Amino acid sequence: MEATLLTAQAFLKHWQGHRRLTRRVIEAFPEDKLFTFSVGGMRPFAGLALEMISMASTGVRGVASGQWSDTEALAHRSAEGAPATKRDLLDRWDETTRTIDHWWPQIAPARFQEVDKVFNMYETTIYEALLYLMDNEVHHRGQGYVYLRALGIEPPPFWER
Amino acid sequence: MEATLLTAQAFLKHWQGHRRLTRRVIEAFPEDKLFTFSVGGMRPFAGLALEMISMASTGVRGVASGQWSDTEALAHRSAEGAPATKRDLLDRWDETTRTIDHWWPQIAPARFQEVDKVFNMYETTIYEALLYLMDNEVHHRGQGYVYLRALGIEPPPFWER
Repeated sequence: MEATLLTAQAFLKHWQGHRRLTRRVIEAFPEDKLFTFSVGGMRPFAGLALEMISMASTGVRGVASGQWSDTEALAHRSAEGAPATKRDLLDRWDETTRTIDHWWPQIAPARFQEVDKVFNMYETTIYEALLYLMDNEVHHRGQGYVYLRALGIEPPPFWER
Repeated sequence: MEATLLTAQAFLKHWQGHRRLTRRVIEAFPEDKLFTFSVGGMRPFAGLALEMISMASTGVRGVASGQWSDTEALAHRSAEGAPATKRDLLDRWDETTRTIDHWWPQIAPARFQEVDKVFNMYETTIYEALLYLMDNEVHHRGQGYVYLRALGIEPPPFWER
């Protein structure tokens, strides 16, 4: 039998740890800069955070339920009702935290090794889709660190979760 | 029994996929900018890549062998013989790829759930130490994407591994 590196519970704990750090990065931005500042023509950090929120909430629901049919509609709704303040964005972040914790225990143990067409777009193994969600967050959060440094603001320590 | 999300083999494949992408990011930098350009007073991308190299090579060796006693010396050697050209840096990158592939099969299956004082500094579970190595690479590579964008260079697609 193959050696287990990461159990489902350990992944959830690790991911939610990353999400707590990303939340602190959102908090570290001055209100206006969160929605306007960027480097090299990229999206402001609020836009990156909203992508994380949208992918995580529709992703975990699709993984648990196998239903991806309305993820496009959900993403649309998410773009329509985009948060306009830091408080709104943090509330949306916390709502996503609860969404993840709600759906996670409903994922069948064998599900992680199944192949599915996630977001109705990408044919991939479920565990790879979950790693993608987390990697994408770490990737964009690292970009937020550069924005903060460029603004002269010390980002929260990377190792604190 | 707990559900497995990620086997040891799947982690290795995923990590080496990330490392191929990071290699393409190194390649995307103009020779001089790789060693000099940064945003917000951060390290140039060559410095970030050298940290990834040092942590990966000493990390995987320590995980497999349980020996961390000379990782400080190794890190010192790595800083002393720091690559001065893109070619040197890529060669060091490829040497690390072989180092990982060499040590990985020697890791005992039960090792991933053991607690150790990694790098002789951090008391943590081995799987968490391995996730840290990969997360740290994704974090800093995301910063490299900002450097490239600020230089007017299109980075390689994040999803291509």
